[in-house]
Amino acid sequence: METGRKEIEAALDAYLPPETEYPQSLHKSIRYSVFSGGKRFRPILCRACFEACGGDGSSVMPVACAIELVHTYSLIHDDLPCMDDDDLRRGKPTNHKVFGEAMAVLAGDALLTLAVDLLVREGARELGAARTIGVLEDLLHAIGSEGMVAGQVVDMESEGRGVGAETIEYIHSHKTAALIEASGRCGALVAEAGEALIACISEYGRKLGLAFQITDDILDAEGGFGDLKSGASLDKRKHKATYPGVFGLGMSRQMAARLVDEAKDSVAHIGVGALPLLSMADLVIRRSS
Amino acid sequence: METGRKEIEAALDAYLPPETEYPQSLHKSIRYSVFSGGKRFRPILCRACFEACGGDGSSVMPVACAIELVHTYSLIHDDLPCMDDDDLRRGKPTNHKVFGEAMAVLAGDALLTLAVDLLVREGARELGAARTIGVLEDLLHAIGSEGMVAGQVVDMESEGRGVGAETIEYIHSHKTAALIEASGRCGALVAEAGEALIACISEYGRKLGLAFQITDDILDAEGGFGDLKSGASLDKRKHKATYPGVFGLGMSRQMAARLVDEAKDSVAHIGVGALPLLSMADLVIRRSS
Repeated sequence: METGRKEIEAALDAYLPPETEYPQSLHKSIRYSVFSGGKRFRPILCRACFEACGGDGSSVMPVACAIELVHTYSLIHDDLPCMDDDDLRRGKPTNHKVFGEAMAVLAGDALLTLAVDLLVREGARELGAARTIGVLEDLLHAIGSEGMVAGQVVDMESEGRGVGAETIEYIHSHKTAALIEASGRCGALVAEAGEALIACISEYGRKLGLAFQITDDILDAEGGFGDLKSGASLDKRKHKATYPGVFGLGMSRQMAARLVDEAKDSVAHIGVGALPLLSMADLVIRRSS
Repeated sequence: METGRKEIEAALDAYLPPETEYPQSLHKSIRYSVFSGGKRFRPILCRACFEACGGDGSSVMPVACAIELVHTYSLIHDDLPCMDDDDLRRGKPTNHKVFGEAMAVLAGDALLTLAVDLLVREGARELGAARTIGVLEDLLHAIGSEGMVAGQVVDMESEGRGVGAETIEYIHSHKTAALIEASGRCGALVAEAGEALIACISEYGRKLGLAFQITDDILDAEGGFGDLKSGASLDKRKHKATYPGVFGLGMSRQMAARLVDEAKDSVAHIGVGALPLLSMADLVIRRSS
């Protein structure tokens, strides 16, 4: 994971405009959030799925990095005062606390644009136009008004309301799991995997993504929502729809464990190439932050 | 213009998810802003440039509509309280006044995603993968951290400061003219125009786009910033960097007129196919709203 993280960060650094590029404030704001200590889970997963499907070399890097830029844009917008109103992210002040709300909105907008731009320029050079279009179709479906953004809307509208099992599954599937699933599937697409293999990787990603968000909820609930959150944010978090809120902690732990097992089952037949996918699945449920 | 507007609106209606699509609130918010009485200047220009370059049929429609979705996303985010804080747009309450700030941020995010999605799905089907990638490259460069978003950042940072000629030209070229220029150039790209013709269309679009924004500034200044603006917005507008603010009204009018003349000159040699481009240029300077 550590080697993978460093390679992704070097690639991100090379792709992004430098801080000296005009307007410097914007490019500083963008780089502040991209290099703020993320685990790079999604790009590492993308690359691991690419390799599990027989892919080799660095042709997957533009896709993996584009996915991390999309993830960063979504975090910056999620943290805004009108959204989750978070002052801290990974122990550091959120983008709008450092650069102001207007810049945070614009940095997010620019990151989404840069993500697609990266695919269209570097991705197309590595993969050719047709495969790039295929990857874009997949990714955009996962993050738009029927994917990640839809999940964020329903999450927001569910705050303070008692939601049922169906709604909480919708929120987590769309808000978090859709991009994690797309990370895996785009890796498989870049490796030109066959339909059956892509379906296995998709199932792996979907289940792993859902387990990832349930584990997040569990960690939040166990840690008293962390000790680094501001009052307003803490209050909002308490009213969020979560798996422990709907199913209780014990049942949520069981559900996450079962999802991780099922995720592993769906790729176990691939053989030795899928070993990193099994380790990553174990990490998701054992992580502490 | 009126026929063109109706055709663009019918195409937009067909491309966008219906209001009944879950989550309905998001899709209502998206459609509210897309169908709020826009002139459809950019998609009509895109199509006119496509036709001036010998293009025929409807293959340009996904590109033209994607550009209008990008324009709409930028307006929704520009109107936010943390940005220009506008209560009204085209005489109607702005998106965040009707749907709340969080939804306005998300509707903008979804529209940018939908715009690229439209190009990647419908565009690629009409134009093939390679030409779609070419159009995307062009469009993304115009709207990202070195294009439209950069212009918005510098505009925001220039509020209340005395800016010079160079800065105001940077703001308007990037914030407004870049997308108008891309509208024309993407039309030419779809028509598979040669390099020389694309260069003429680019120059036309760049100059027309700048004249468009200068005329906006002049209308604002002449109309006392309009009578439909809220107090806060009016106050912000007064402190914005504008051409009349930097050069005075008389000189700004002369600059806009000269730019329109130069825009027309750059496409006049195309002949009868460029007549609509000449009319559109005249409209830009004669418009009253």
